[in-house]
Amino acid sequence: MPTRESAIVLLSGGLDSATCLYWARSKGWRVTALNVHYGQRHARETRSARALARRAGAKLVELRLKLPWLAASSLVDPKKRLPDLPVAKIGLGGIPSTYVPGRNTILLALAVSLAETEGARRVVIGSNHLDYSGYPDCRPEFNRAFERVAAIGTKAGAERRAAKIEAPLIRLDKRQIVRLASRLGVPIERTWSCYRGGRRPCGACDSCKLRAKGFAEAGVVDAALS
Amino acid sequence: MPTRESAIVLLSGGLDSATCLYWARSKGWRVTALNVHYGQRHARETRSARALARRAGAKLVELRLKLPWLAASSLVDPKKRLPDLPVAKIGLGGIPSTYVPGRNTILLALAVSLAETEGARRVVIGSNHLDYSGYPDCRPEFNRAFERVAAIGTKAGAERRAAKIEAPLIRLDKRQIVRLASRLGVPIERTWSCYRGGRRPCGACDSCKLRAKGFAEAGVVDAALS
Repeated sequence: MPTRESAIVLLSGGLDSATCLYWARSKGWRVTALNVHYGQRHARETRSARALARRAGAKLVELRLKLPWLAASSLVDPKKRLPDLPVAKIGLGGIPSTYVPGRNTILLALAVSLAETEGARRVVIGSNHLDYSGYPDCRPEFNRAFERVAAIGTKAGAERRAAKIEAPLIRLDKRQIVRLASRLGVPIERTWSCYRGGRRPCGACDSCKLRAKGFAEAGVVDAALS
Repeated sequence: MPTRESAIVLLSGGLDSATCLYWARSKGWRVTALNVHYGQRHARETRSARALARRAGAKLVELRLKLPWLAASSLVDPKKRLPDLPVAKIGLGGIPSTYVPGRNTILLALAVSLAETEGARRVVIGSNHLDYSGYPDCRPEFNRAFERVAAIGTKAGAERRAAKIEAPLIRLDKRQIVRLASRLGVPIERTWSCYRGGRRPCGACDSCKLRAKGFAEAGVVDAALS
């Protein structure tokens, strides 16, 4: 009998990565979730990641990275102003100040290392290049380039079982992600998308605005707000 | 007047990375050294990295990563036996137990992120594929693949100033590295290559044996042993 396939899911605790978690589960894969705190303004997402992994029955590996140089990003430095654009303009104005240099490169590097250790053949990341077209590391060609690094640079690759990078949301917009999340039974109320911390989402940051637009267009009530 | 070019040098504190540090300095580049402790058996190398960076007048960024899954490598797990091969066989027996899954992928990801933040156009890594032919992530094609990731996945890449991966030792054997180190004025006595910690190198691990062979063949006295 073939053994069950396994996957590493990068789980921030937001709606996108939660959808990836449930998507991987729906494939029947054994899932290890990897939550990486790289110095974001708050650890609120990590609490969501814990709740989501527990609910999905996935093992959770948590990492705390202290990368002092990332303070240049407004996503990390609480003294920097978060962007506040009209929702139609998000992603159109070039690379936003929330861009974190090399973020997905670091996340995928860690996930590929964990995948190799666990014998997992898939690494799942919640990138989507429609809403986040401003981020160069959210594009399909970035994932393909990283897959090549994993194939060449690992023992698993030498044995032709290198991890594939799966980005199931890459061509979806927020409306489609909300619908997919509903269909997969993601516990929406456990997810956290807001760039700020606190008890409730701020409703004003780019991430909150994109989320609200997605739910409105999908005709779904955002259970995290109720 | 053109501004001085800058480079990130991955500095473990061993002979190879120390040679890279002095090689980068010899190019006239402004150097930031990046020392990453990823859970190796000991932190002896970090002390060497500090001494080397200070001596070379380079800024040093130190990172402590706690990657629980890396315990599978004998370089990390003190309970695992280090390999103990005759020196002529090192690197010939496939991938050794000191292989750390995704190690150089993680190191380069961190260095590329730092490079982007500092506006550095070069990342220097001490890989050499002759002595370490067993490690898939020490090969030239791995560095080229990673360069592509950096070009596609960073804001710097979008602006056509992505970091290049420089591996000045990649085609050198230990004898040639020892000669280059001597020529560049590397303070050999400050470098640490032994896989074990302690006050003095063990002389028995693969790394000590390769080093001893290199010094003997180069006809240079290893100042770290005197």
